[in-house]
Amino acid sequence: MSPKMTTELLKQLRHVMKNPRYVQEPVQAYIVPSGDAHQSEYIAPCDCRRAFISGFDGSAGTAIVTEQHAAMWTDGRYFLQAAQQMDTNWTLMKMGLKDTPTQEDWLVSVLPEGSKVGVDPFIIPADQWKRMSKALRSAGHDLVPVKENLIDTIWTDCPQRPCKPLITLDLSYTGVSWRDKIVALRSKMAERKVLWFVVTALDEVAWLFNLRGSDVEYNPVFFAYAVIGMNTIRLFIDGERMMDPAVREHLQLDSTLEPEFKIQVLPYGSILSELQAVGASLSPKEKVWLSDKASYALTEAIPKAYRYLTPYTPICTAKAVKNTSETEGMRRAHIKDAVALCELFNWLEKEVPKGTVTEIMAADKAEEFRSQQKDFVELSFATISSTGPNGAIIHYKPVPETNRTLSVNEIYLLDSGAQYKDGTTDVTRTMHFGTPSAYEKECFTYVLKGHIAVSAAIFPNGTKGHLLDSFARSALWDCGLDYLHGTGHGVGSFLNVHEGPCGISYKTFADEPLEAGMIVSDEPGYYEDGSFGIRIENVVLVIPAETKYNFKNRGSLTFEPLTLVPIQTKMIDVSLLTQKECNWVNSYHQRCREVIGAELERQGRHEALRWLLRETEPLVRVQ
Amino acid sequence: MSPKMTTELLKQLRHVMKNPRYVQEPVQAYIVPSGDAHQSEYIAPCDCRRAFISGFDGSAGTAIVTEQHAAMWTDGRYFLQAAQQMDTNWTLMKMGLKDTPTQEDWLVSVLPEGSKVGVDPFIIPADQWKRMSKALRSAGHDLVPVKENLIDTIWTDCPQRPCKPLITLDLSYTGVSWRDKIVALRSKMAERKVLWFVVTALDEVAWLFNLRGSDVEYNPVFFAYAVIGMNTIRLFIDGERMMDPAVREHLQLDSTLEPEFKIQVLPYGSILSELQAVGASLSPKEKVWLSDKASYALTEAIPKAYRYLTPYTPICTAKAVKNTSETEGMRRAHIKDAVALCELFNWLEKEVPKGTVTEIMAADKAEEFRSQQKDFVELSFATISSTGPNGAIIHYKPVPETNRTLSVNEIYLLDSGAQYKDGTTDVTRTMHFGTPSAYEKECFTYVLKGHIAVSAAIFPNGTKGHLLDSFARSALWDCGLDYLHGTGHGVGSFLNVHEGPCGISYKTFADEPLEAGMIVSDEPGYYEDGSFGIRIENVVLVIPAETKYNFKNRGSLTFEPLTLVPIQTKMIDVSLLTQKECNWVNSYHQRCREVIGAELERQGRHEALRWLLRETEPLVRVQ
Repeated sequence: MSPKMTTELLKQLRHVMKNPRYVQEPVQAYIVPSGDAHQSEYIAPCDCRRAFISGFDGSAGTAIVTEQHAAMWTDGRYFLQAAQQMDTNWTLMKMGLKDTPTQEDWLVSVLPEGSKVGVDPFIIPADQWKRMSKALRSAGHDLVPVKENLIDTIWTDCPQRPCKPLITLDLSYTGVSWRDKIVALRSKMAERKVLWFVVTALDEVAWLFNLRGSDVEYNPVFFAYAVIGMNTIRLFIDGERMMDPAVREHLQLDSTLEPEFKIQVLPYGSILSELQAVGASLSPKEKVWLSDKASYALTEAIPKAYRYLTPYTPICTAKAVKNTSETEGMRRAHIKDAVALCELFNWLEKEVPKGTVTEIMAADKAEEFRSQQKDFVELSFATISSTGPNGAIIHYKPVPETNRTLSVNEIYLLDSGAQYKDGTTDVTRTMHFGTPSAYEKECFTYVLKGHIAVSAAIFPNGTKGHLLDSFARSALWDCGLDYLHGTGHGVGSFLNVHEGPCGISYKTFADEPLEAGMIVSDEPGYYEDGSFGIRIENVVLVIPAETKYNFKNRGSLTFEPLTLVPIQTKMIDVSLLTQKECNWVNSYHQRCREVIGAELERQGRHEALRWLLRETEPLVRVQ
Repeated sequence: MSPKMTTELLKQLRHVMKNPRYVQEPVQAYIVPSGDAHQSEYIAPCDCRRAFISGFDGSAGTAIVTEQHAAMWTDGRYFLQAAQQMDTNWTLMKMGLKDTPTQEDWLVSVLPEGSKVGVDPFIIPADQWKRMSKALRSAGHDLVPVKENLIDTIWTDCPQRPCKPLITLDLSYTGVSWRDKIVALRSKMAERKVLWFVVTALDEVAWLFNLRGSDVEYNPVFFAYAVIGMNTIRLFIDGERMMDPAVREHLQLDSTLEPEFKIQVLPYGSILSELQAVGASLSPKEKVWLSDKASYALTEAIPKAYRYLTPYTPICTAKAVKNTSETEGMRRAHIKDAVALCELFNWLEKEVPKGTVTEIMAADKAEEFRSQQKDFVELSFATISSTGPNGAIIHYKPVPETNRTLSVNEIYLLDSGAQYKDGTTDVTRTMHFGTPSAYEKECFTYVLKGHIAVSAAIFPNGTKGHLLDSFARSALWDCGLDYLHGTGHGVGSFLNVHEGPCGISYKTFADEPLEAGMIVSDEPGYYEDGSFGIRIENVVLVIPAETKYNFKNRGSLTFEPLTLVPIQTKMIDVSLLTQKECNWVNSYHQRCREVIGAELERQGRHEALRWLLRETEPLVRVQ
């Protein structure tokens, strides 16, 4: 991977930072955040402005360019990747390390007195604006909104904003109609005494209307906003897709409806002016509910006294707790996904020794097997197919320049998933197709112990996921090993593979308590820079647990793995497992045999079935 | 314990809430926080305003009185105690439970439109003021400072503010002179570009000047503020104690000194006007450093643009990391403390079966044995001496009305500690002087497993203590049990038994990373309302650990128990321990034998020595 040459681009950007055509006054720094106008984690090509200016295309990162400097903040998953993709114009700011300055502190340390710092008000979330603006102001600088995005002004071949057809989901997938979701939302609004709710996150719009799209790769969402009143529904969306009879029927656009369920369709670009009109029409005590992560531009459209901001919206919270139709769909999706992976690993086991399989080929083959499954839509994220040292790049995606050949001498890490119409998958397995070293097995086994510690954890109802994070690290910590990422994230139901408000991470304290029906990933890892990467990831469902004393009727929770793909026993140093851990592996594999075995049989995939049976032989622990 | 009758007092308070002599405009609600003007946790009798108005005298709680209601917020440690001490005028708000409203939400729900909420600006911390003021304002109410404390106006027999003599500590105790502490503080101030630092917490004043006092029971502090400039030192303190030649010599008040070390002694009450003068004298860019928990009154004395607020002050952080003189002192203090407890438990073992020992007698006996030890000053908190159901009241203190007799049929929980001139102790042991039930042993053993999980935990340098909290709960959680308090708090060195900025609790995210030299408690528990309480507490020192891979040179940490008092093996169900846990107990008891045995021998306490040897017989685990 060679770095992007950015000298010329930075020169152009610094030029427009002073150009009165774009800025009222010259800005001495310009911030290029990761997101789009919906604060999405995964974004469309036309929104990859940070990648365009810097070359670094990981999913998280903020660039700041001043007259003298260019700096990039990103987290532990991307330290190696960012260092490789950026040229020497850029300073990498490793977030989470003790000596790394915050963006605000850094700006204060490099800016001349009384500077202006520009940012696109549609891209920066309101909470970030507030924090940064305050810090800059107290140091004598100003954060200013720059209406026209300065990257767009120099990005001559910027792709068009996508506008793809929509998929309608019926009740068998969603369990709840969009009308009932609107009713539930309005009741939450009434509880909090708000009159309006603004839906800004793309997955929240999709979930609310039981629609899916493909405007953003991997995330089945579409560019839209919605504004829900107590008697009105406004959907801001562009394109011919609203002429699709199936969509019109689904949204009952042409039916005679009670007025409070009549959807008014408006152009995507009119959200700001419509919201400003709403803001101007409010009487005292009337409130508008927005996520505190909504863009500064939309938040400012509502006068401060009328805003009701929360870190998580009622849609975010409702969406996280899956109903029976959704969990059943997720189960089906994970069975199909496991079938595809059994096929893949069986194929790899035969092909890798020949020395002809590259990381890209393996990823393509995984997609091929997945696409054979019913209701397959697309992948749920860019497949991380990595062998040897590439495995240590936590969010690695193979490209021709880095594409290694799989071999019997190196660990292979595959983190992949798919979107099926009935659910979203995300699974990581770490395999060795030859003989792993004792050290590799040792590290793998610690990671496995951490994975089991979370998966088998029992905890009281209402526990926040971040309290479980250290369970995943304990075995690694005992030997002086650790990993620089969280342990789990929420997973959508045929929606974004990363979703809030729950998760398992030492990094957040603002996660919502876990409750039955939530779905998260459990994915501890270990990474040895320059050598290998190990990660074991299942998607798990929060379920009620049986405990002896049941927390004085507060209720007990635990996890049920939805992912049912064998964990390579060859990589396990059984002597490091306790009997309980050993039993966990064996009963997990027994379940893989029963559920996935039956499906492989049904699909007539006999060779993969034999592979599954071989890979799920019980472990025996010698006392 | 019968509740305090507060009907008349509340009537008087509601009267003064409308009296123009005290309030500019009537206030519809009045907040009575726990603290004093220094935001102390433990307070002098004259500052026990919340206990005076409500009857509830636990260490944490906030009362709010409106025209119609009186409500008390407190945490899980005090639910039972508060319910018993307050009459029916009061509503108990159980913090940490899901359905308990915050103070702000509750106020908004009960106040008439456009209300004024009053509070003493010297008592409320600035950060709380800000949060509450904002929440009230957004609901159309106002938080207003009420200069004269309204409780004081109705508290006719309020005791005098204490003003006791000071103790000077020489280098052999503190390791660093006050001059060197000032130098280090000024260098931290220079780093952050602040010109002034305001010391508001009592333990920070005491630590900075290597002085101790006894104005507040259990906490060896004295009422004072300090304002440190780059060339000036101002100490705000009252009383004849500053005429003490030892104190004058210690502070070099009568010596010819470099001007930057010359201490200017000013009246305690002049802090506000002096600080206002400092505030008025500042030029742009000149900053004053205050804790964000300093009182609203003092914070407001500095114009907003000149304030530099942090959650932890540089003194708080420096104080937490003990130097060699301090850790050696802490070790000595814990050895003496263990000697006293061996004597006590030996005595209890003989006396309890006679049925003549009450909780109060046991507590007094513990104090008697402690006071026989060298450099004993006082207790470090009110001894929790509780048997049977009283043990479930987490911060129980025996009083004549509740005083139970210890028996061979009930669990006895003793949580106690002392201030010695060389260190502060805090230890909890749970004992049975007859035959514990299987259930009691089961619960005790889970608590012990949690205690060991924290004590033996290995973690990377820079880990925050809250990440270790769930280790203490895991064994309890597995059976559906939990406890409603944090797992550990920082411990001062001949200072407050509770100190920041580190700790081990699920409740905070703002703790500072653990580093070698910090001292915290490790005290999981289990409480069965109406039956018994179990807690096992050691004070532990953070030390470097040896690990196989040492976190890529980031460094490993673990804990070393400073407390060396046997854990009653009779209460342990050995079959529930792993071999590793069993080994931990045995090696801990071996260390008790070696260290405390030698000291008992030296002090000629042969009977207690025999008790120690009996109680530290190795556990044997049958496979």
